[in-house]
Amino acid sequence: MQELDARTVREWGERYSNWGRWGEDDELGTLNFITPERVLAACALPRSGRVISCALPFDARGPQAGLGGRYNPIHTMLATGADALAGAQDFLPGGFNYADDAVTMPLQCGTQWDSLAHVFYDGKMYGGRDVRLVTSRGARANSIDRIANGVVGRGVLLDLPRTTGQPWLEDGTRILPEHLDACAERQGVAIEPGDVLLVRTGMMTRCLEQKSWKGYCGGPAPGLSVHCARWLFERELAAVATDTWGVEVIPNETRDCFQPLHMIALRNTGLLLGEIFALDALAAACAEDGRYAFLFSAPPLPITGAVGSPINPLAIK
Amino acid sequence: MQELDARTVREWGERYSNWGRWGEDDELGTLNFITPERVLAACALPRSGRVISCALPFDARGPQAGLGGRYNPIHTMLATGADALAGAQDFLPGGFNYADDAVTMPLQCGTQWDSLAHVFYDGKMYGGRDVRLVTSRGARANSIDRIANGVVGRGVLLDLPRTTGQPWLEDGTRILPEHLDACAERQGVAIEPGDVLLVRTGMMTRCLEQKSWKGYCGGPAPGLSVHCARWLFERELAAVATDTWGVEVIPNETRDCFQPLHMIALRNTGLLLGEIFALDALAAACAEDGRYAFLFSAPPLPITGAVGSPINPLAIK
Amino acid sequence: MQELDARTVREWGERYSNWGRWGEDDELGTLNFITPERVLAACALPRSGRVISCALPFDARGPQAGLGGRYNPIHTMLATGADALAGAQDFLPGGFNYADDAVTMPLQCGTQWDSLAHVFYDGKMYGGRDVRLVTSRGARANSIDRIANGVVGRGVLLDLPRTTGQPWLEDGTRILPEHLDACAERQGVAIEPGDVLLVRTGMMTRCLEQKSWKGYCGGPAPGLSVHCARWLFERELAAVATDTWGVEVIPNETRDCFQPLHMIALRNTGLLLGEIFALDALAAACAEDGRYAFLFSAPPLPITGAVGSPINPLAIK
Amino acid sequence: MQELDARTVREWGERYSNWGRWGEDDELGTLNFITPERVLAACALPRSGRVISCALPFDARGPQAGLGGRYNPIHTMLATGADALAGAQDFLPGGFNYADDAVTMPLQCGTQWDSLAHVFYDGKMYGGRDVRLVTSRGARANSIDRIANGVVGRGVLLDLPRTTGQPWLEDGTRILPEHLDACAERQGVAIEPGDVLLVRTGMMTRCLEQKSWKGYCGGPAPGLSVHCARWLFERELAAVATDTWGVEVIPNETRDCFQPLHMIALRNTGLLLGEIFALDALAAACAEDGRYAFLFSAPPLPITGAVGSPINPLAIK
Repeated sequence: MQELDARTVREWGERYSNWGRWGEDDELGTLNFITPERVLAACALPRSGRVISCALPFDARGPQAGLGGRYNPIHTMLATGADALAGAQDFLPGGFNYADDAVTMPLQCGTQWDSLAHVFYDGKMYGGRDVRLVTSRGARANSIDRIANGVVGRGVLLDLPRTTGQPWLEDGTRILPEHLDACAERQGVAIEPGDVLLVRTGMMTRCLEQKSWKGYCGGPAPGLSVHCARWLFERELAAVATDTWGVEVIPNETRDCFQPLHMIALRNTGLLLGEIFALDALAAACAEDGRYAFLFSAPPLPITGAVGSPINPLAIK
Repeated sequence: MQELDARTVREWGERYSNWGRWGEDDELGTLNFITPERVLAACALPRSGRVISCALPFDARGPQAGLGGRYNPIHTMLATGADALAGAQDFLPGGFNYADDAVTMPLQCGTQWDSLAHVFYDGKMYGGRDVRLVTSRGARANSIDRIANGVVGRGVLLDLPRTTGQPWLEDGTRILPEHLDACAERQGVAIEPGDVLLVRTGMMTRCLEQKSWKGYCGGPAPGLSVHCARWLFERELAAVATDTWGVEVIPNETRDCFQPLHMIALRNTGLLLGEIFALDALAAACAEDGRYAFLFSAPPLPITGAVGSPINPLAIK
Repeated sequence: MQELDARTVREWGERYSNWGRWGEDDELGTLNFITPERVLAACALPRSGRVISCALPFDARGPQAGLGGRYNPIHTMLATGADALAGAQDFLPGGFNYADDAVTMPLQCGTQWDSLAHVFYDGKMYGGRDVRLVTSRGARANSIDRIANGVVGRGVLLDLPRTTGQPWLEDGTRILPEHLDACAERQGVAIEPGDVLLVRTGMMTRCLEQKSWKGYCGGPAPGLSVHCARWLFERELAAVATDTWGVEVIPNETRDCFQPLHMIALRNTGLLLGEIFALDALAAACAEDGRYAFLFSAPPLPITGAVGSPINPLAIK
Repeated sequence: MQELDARTVREWGERYSNWGRWGEDDELGTLNFITPERVLAACALPRSGRVISCALPFDARGPQAGLGGRYNPIHTMLATGADALAGAQDFLPGGFNYADDAVTMPLQCGTQWDSLAHVFYDGKMYGGRDVRLVTSRGARANSIDRIANGVVGRGVLLDLPRTTGQPWLEDGTRILPEHLDACAERQGVAIEPGDVLLVRTGMMTRCLEQKSWKGYCGGPAPGLSVHCARWLFERELAAVATDTWGVEVIPNETRDCFQPLHMIALRNTGLLLGEIFALDALAAACAEDGRYAFLFSAPPLPITGAVGSPINPLAIK
């Protein structure tokens, strides 16, 4: 295989770019591949009516350990049942009471979508938009609110460790296009344009089983090789998500670029990336019924100007 | 009509209770009405493949003005494009950069689900669970994370002002069961068990048009009469949501109980309530194609122990 | 008087600059004027031993209304007495319980110091440091933590409305050097190098009396004229604080520069500015004993990289 | 020594109680010992005019590791110099720019005062006030804002490891009254009524030297024995602070009561406790000039209803 460096990332970025493909003003990127027809087709997939969440619970036991200033969700109560007992709600008539709460959280601390404003280089993000548009006031382009009418379509799970008989892929395992194709074939599912591809590496399974997130955020991990950039582009996928922190393999395949696949996929291809997906329940269900394609719905919170969003992705089988 | 007081609320609560209906351990409440069969049936509804968000943008321009300690979402950046320009990310190799962000927000400050731990009286919440379970550490029962595998099903919009030819219902307008039935009939849609009912009053339309949220939170509002409690119970609805702050009419119909329908619906019926839904785009689409039933998906963020969740509800037509 | 514009601000900035005065590495600015000798002298001022806080309470009733993304402090409980009653702390032995809490607040939402990294122009802040040093990661120079060993010294109150017999100065009142000198003279106090000057305009008195902060943040206000820039520089003051949002008069005296005195004082003179000081109790005490000089202590929280800090300034008389 | 249990804590609590000593409405507790005369006397202590901060920097490198839901301060920028470069502040005229920021932090995550509402048992806190007064809405009695006009007085440092020739006291070291007396004697300082006593154990020195806070929060630590309860009461101290997480020795001296000294001192004696004080610079200065008494100023932020406050304690020598 060719040796990769920052220059190659730029070359591939240019090669696998969708800038302008859907007009100058496009901020949806590959979500454009999810045409209304494909939404309808996806709605025809469910057979059992079972709905399965792919979200990790959002709480203090999450994976964050400080990298990049990220922390786990901080959930605080504004009003409680205990307050009611203590008389703090006696201003309400009739003995009727309530509880209320709030959260402080990095938008990418748990199960989440990266927006197309999340990464950039050479002063530009997806669509050629200037990085100066992303300041303390938020992102004025490519922000997560632009995809409020999504993400609904056909989801496909590729359960790599299950098809190879491992409990999980080892850290550092590079997932190449041929691995994805082989997995799809063994599972008997075809990957189609407009699909939301969910790739299970088993890394989260291991962390939960070992009750340790050590290394999960930013450490060595199995993940997509940057050599998948072309495959993702040509397959015309709408989104790709994994059960890892960062979709792609760590250590990265080039020393002089951190997360090269992010750079190409988000900035050039305009491909939505999903991370920290909890795929075990879905994987078990797919293994049980042998159906790896399903209706998928994972709406982001349209936080104005945000560069990511926590989500609760649902598979409807 | 019978005069209502706190005693009546308790009587009706007992009458329209689903406690124990789905077993002692049930924490789903009326979401149990969304059987797998009904999910499948809902998936067969879409005709156009169009997806429409019912979320108000989450930002500082939201409706909150301090009531109950609630405030609008506070979005802050952890890393920006501007930082990159300023050299703050030069520790990353190859000129590759990123943006990251966080939010601080009350969970019920915008478009949201109330969990079944949100209101209570006489020391009990839905299922007879003790309010002592809701403390500063969160809710240990009936919390929003319990419905992580939801909410997906058949959605029905009742667009009250459109069927009566008004731009919006006046503040204080009581919506009675007969109004709901009449609206459904005029729209040519049947309300079925397991439905997620979206009731448009036009109040949000007015606030957005007048660029003022004054009175929206906690002030006089159109909304469901507490006399709908029986109707909601008997129709076996899964959830009810409105474009208002609190689903039900304000002023409340009894002086000695604030939000009596909340008390009965959430605590006794176990009915999921949705608030601050942005229904204008959906209403326009329904008016256009004449179809008021659709596939509906509005997964909550499974924040452990939370008593509500911001959501981005999607209608798939 | 000369007409002021942005060019004049730059000229005066150059004229009243202390860059380099205390060495290239200086980040204390005019706090350097508070020599140990002056601290000792200030300690000799108290006669009664009375201590008076000049802080506005930090809570939701504060003055912020959203300007610049600022909001009032959000105080949340992590553990409560009510929790204890509800049994949430039964894991602690012996029936012993506790309460705990947290705050989310802009650092300049209430009584506060501006750090020397708070304002800048032409790419430079105090000491000629590049504004690129102030990013989402905080300020890497001139931040508030650099003055952790302060602010202790001689405080002097100038109670302008009291000496002129008004309840408060009208909005838009320009305070000129001669007003300050006249007030000092009438009060029988001399202003000395190294002093922390507290200027009472009465604006906060009015807001509290009228129970309205309308216009307090960013609206028309009495305050120091930009013509005080030279006076502040020549008097070698250590800090200046007022009972207003922004120290200086609004409307600003030049259309093409917002807060010109901030620019000159913070960026060039390196003068610490204090805002939203609650001076009524101190003013009453000074009027009572006729002594307008006192020992003053207002330590900032050394939040690393912060550009301001909430404070509780104390006058010891 | 007598074996301690929860019953003894209650007995001693009753014995060393100051409830009612300063009237029914008192919320100052032992701060009442700091009379104006004593403030004046303290002002006469400084000899050099040097001011020394006893605060640990407030940042992500702080000691918190999640215990009790506490986390280190989260500092976020609302506006930056980088923004200015990127043009995000071009709405401001004349090329003048600014930075602004915010913090989210537990009030007791760093250098701090415990308020008299921080701990309680048998349904009561200091002064016999009901714990029902401490709910999600904050503390309605004994809160930190009640001591806004403080804390200023005579400070005394007892530098235990220095007088015994150790770098730091070992974890679990019980500090008894005789150790305190011996240390004071060796240092040549008398402890007087109304003093703020700062006890250096060296634990923070060790953590900083070893670059690890492991065990600092809640783990074994040197600290005051609960046998100091009487001594603290009889000496009529105003406050006691240490360089540890919790003032008192851990493991606690009774299995069935966590932090027994907290219970007696805060709830019964009404003694202000300070924690996570950074005492190394002060200790060095005291060792140098041989003077262990100084003017001390550590104003809390008067956050309404708060049960603690971050502080920057200053020693003026």
